[in-house]
Amino acid sequence: METSNPIEKALQASLSSTSSPECPPKLASALLYAVFPGGARIRPKLLMAVAQACGSKACEAALAASCAIELLHCASLVHDDLPCFDGAAYRRGKPSVHVAYGERLAVLVGDALIVEAFAATAAFPQLTRIIVQAASVPHGICAGQAWECEDAMNLVNYQRAKTGALFAACTMAGAAAAGCDPKPWHHLGMLIGEAFQVADDLRDVAGVSGEIGKPTGQDAAHGLPNMVSTLGYDGALTYLENLLGRVVESIPDCPGREGLGQQIVTVARAMVPKQLYRGAA
Amino acid sequence: METSNPIEKALQASLSSTSSPECPPKLASALLYAVFPGGARIRPKLLMAVAQACGSKACEAALAASCAIELLHCASLVHDDLPCFDGAAYRRGKPSVHVAYGERLAVLVGDALIVEAFAATAAFPQLTRIIVQAASVPHGICAGQAWECEDAMNLVNYQRAKTGALFAACTMAGAAAAGCDPKPWHHLGMLIGEAFQVADDLRDVAGVSGEIGKPTGQDAAHGLPNMVSTLGYDGALTYLENLLGRVVESIPDCPGREGLGQQIVTVARAMVPKQLYRGAA
Repeated sequence: METSNPIEKALQASLSSTSSPECPPKLASALLYAVFPGGARIRPKLLMAVAQACGSKACEAALAASCAIELLHCASLVHDDLPCFDGAAYRRGKPSVHVAYGERLAVLVGDALIVEAFAATAAFPQLTRIIVQAASVPHGICAGQAWECEDAMNLVNYQRAKTGALFAACTMAGAAAAGCDPKPWHHLGMLIGEAFQVADDLRDVAGVSGEIGKPTGQDAAHGLPNMVSTLGYDGALTYLENLLGRVVESIPDCPGREGLGQQIVTVARAMVPKQLYRGAA
Repeated sequence: METSNPIEKALQASLSSTSSPECPPKLASALLYAVFPGGARIRPKLLMAVAQACGSKACEAALAASCAIELLHCASLVHDDLPCFDGAAYRRGKPSVHVAYGERLAVLVGDALIVEAFAATAAFPQLTRIIVQAASVPHGICAGQAWECEDAMNLVNYQRAKTGALFAACTMAGAAAAGCDPKPWHHLGMLIGEAFQVADDLRDVAGVSGEIGKPTGQDAAHGLPNMVSTLGYDGALTYLENLLGRVVESIPDCPGREGLGQQIVTVARAMVPKQLYRGAA
């Protein structure tokens, strides 16, 4: 899961039509702004790692799915940051898209990124179907975000849809791209999603805004659930470590099973603000 | 292009996951509200008519593409009606989605409909690619809408992208679904799009709000170009008739060429408020 140029190249290729002289220049600029430079690219790296662990040699399908999932993730960030949702002023260490380009272009950037996501996997119907499930209703990120609009939130469904679904799409699409049955990889993805959600909760409460590239304390500000407020720092850290243990156990049999587990644990722990591990040690 | 139950059935099937008990209920309701009852369903009817004119027997691919294009069209209406764009209070004779369900759900409805559009054509990579071009940058509806955000609007690119692209996708996908080369059908779709834009301009200026199901005078209110303000009623009507003549001439050779031309002309003329034809006669 180390930095992988092929992912960036695939993302650049996906947005190459922004360089057309016939593209509205502000939209072109805003699309590139929303995707580059990226965050940690955790999802596409996970997908590629699963494909490799499953023995994938030809990586065209895995790269296409990686690209699609990262574009969907970027789209969801741009729309979640809109004033009608979180109204977040910055993201990835710079003004969020609606602040930099206005609300209208932020809406269109999200829309266009969703379209480009499915352009990326057009040649791979099985991967498209996996990714559709992760984005749509009833269990995908659109549904996840929509739970925030309900009078009574179903917390389990909310977190599984808002965070878990896209991670499950990564593990399933990675396996499918390598020619393996994706179904056994669903549970692993949901567990990874839960682990990353807890790690993100820890960052939200304990993180240093400049380090994580977005405002801290957002869950409390928006009345959203956060594992730290439920379990405390130590409880949340213990819960995370327990989850990571289950993640490692849940990896389906494949040639690169052991290395994959180590990679996932390393990346998840790296998300947690360092002082918390020092405090727990 | 008469009312076709298979199109409604395909659209209902596309949104069947809204009936899952695990779907956020407001989002489920808002998705159905945005798609049913529909407008004239002009785009899917055009697509099916082209597929039939090209001799299509098995209509699964044509229905899938019809469904995808209508869902994208609905998504674009929901997002265009948002307060940051047109702020339209009603659509298709009822409160627009953001008025009925709030802005957040309106954003998510558009997002989910885009995803469902590509779910519909997942099995047909060629159709997906045609529809991607009609939705994305540089020439699709996202780009078309984005021209409204530019300081200087390229009017030709704006109208081709905002209206023409989706009509071109209809004619191209209809031909492709019937096993024909889609390229010769692009020009026809763009011409039909232009004709429908002029007919819509006439409705916007001369229409009766209750009859057309949305507010009139919106182009003037938002400073958008309108052919009636450029050419006057008679000039715009003459321009429309001239375009329809070119539409009929431009239909590529196919078994049902003559009937297709008649259908398109009939539907376009039916959009124009009747008193204008009486005045011109």
